[in-house]
Amino acid sequence: MDERLRKQLEFSLELDKEKNIFRQTHLSGHGRNENDAEHAWHMAMMAYVLKEYSNEEIDIARVILMCLIHDVVEIYAGDTYAYDPEALATQKQREEEAKEKIFSMLPEDQKKELTDLFDEFEAFETAESKFAHAMDNLQPLLLNDSNDGGDWRAHGVDAERIYGRQNKTRLGSEKLFEITDEIIRKNIEKGSIRP
Amino acid sequence: MDERLRKQLEFSLELDKEKNIFRQTHLSGHGRNENDAEHAWHMAMMAYVLKEYSNEEIDIARVILMCLIHDVVEIYAGDTYAYDPEALATQKQREEEAKEKIFSMLPEDQKKELTDLFDEFEAFETAESKFAHAMDNLQPLLLNDSNDGGDWRAHGVDAERIYGRQNKTRLGSEKLFEITDEIIRKNIEKGSIRP
Repeated sequence: MDERLRKQLEFSLELDKEKNIFRQTHLSGHGRNENDAEHAWHMAMMAYVLKEYSNEEIDIARVILMCLIHDVVEIYAGDTYAYDPEALATQKQREEEAKEKIFSMLPEDQKKELTDLFDEFEAFETAESKFAHAMDNLQPLLLNDSNDGGDWRAHGVDAERIYGRQNKTRLGSEKLFEITDEIIRKNIEKGSIRP
Repeated sequence: MDERLRKQLEFSLELDKEKNIFRQTHLSGHGRNENDAEHAWHMAMMAYVLKEYSNEEIDIARVILMCLIHDVVEIYAGDTYAYDPEALATQKQREEEAKEKIFSMLPEDQKKELTDLFDEFEAFETAESKFAHAMDNLQPLLLNDSNDGGDWRAHGVDAERIYGRQNKTRLGSEKLFEITDEIIRKNIEKGSIRP
């Protein structure tokens, strides 16, 4: 087998480990914790179905790719809960190291391509990145709402912190932020989110 | 909320159930059974990384979408093991009913779009469908090989049945079939696959 293909197959097998990285979000029906790989799949599917709500024109293929790879660094860096300030403080450095490690398994041209895509997502500047981030917010919101806000209750998260993150959905989609806002208000009323 | 968006969000939430459909394949490192959602994610990632090996020119965005949705009918129809003749006999009808049910949750235009994409995958005629099928074969092959062929051993599958399915990888990628063939031969030699 040639060296290029060998590297690509080793990277492919390494990706499997993303299925063992578990998030704080629970599956609907009060299910188990969700893992990063299925979260990424779900985001990509939602991006495709909801693409008409992007504020700006987007290359949906690029959004989908960003959704698919955006958590791949967590194979080594682990999941960082969106409302955990201590973990958030070290997140950047842990993920930079992990990014170098995982994408270095690929041939040089593909390492660059996927690193660029990952960095574009992180930078939150392009229309595609903003819409992908909106999915990263909306997907767990839908699950959590379907479970009566169980994840917010468990962590005692308040409205300010939730809006601090979810407000950014507006940058990708004003329309989907309206729904987000409705869901958050409903969960504050129900007592699932501290006001 | 308008009716169109309500339907799209209900479909999005319904997709979550695909994470509870478990396959016969086990994760690498002798892990747990894999579910359909993470399998689809893994196939889509592999399609992107290995796209240069397609026999024909392909629209990689379309391949990725096919990978992402190809198992969505299993939410209602369940997983059908590739080497279980009884389940294979009823698979087509179960999946047709499930397809109608799941895609009917969407607005009419998106129902048609995703049904067409699903049917294109199933028909195995376009270059994109053939490459997506190659991923559907290669992804579990890599995992199973990494686990010393444990899934083949558990089911006592013989080489004829494995080649019956895996030979079709050649239609999408001659190059990836070479690797497939190498892996199968190695596992026959090791006694993981009955000759």
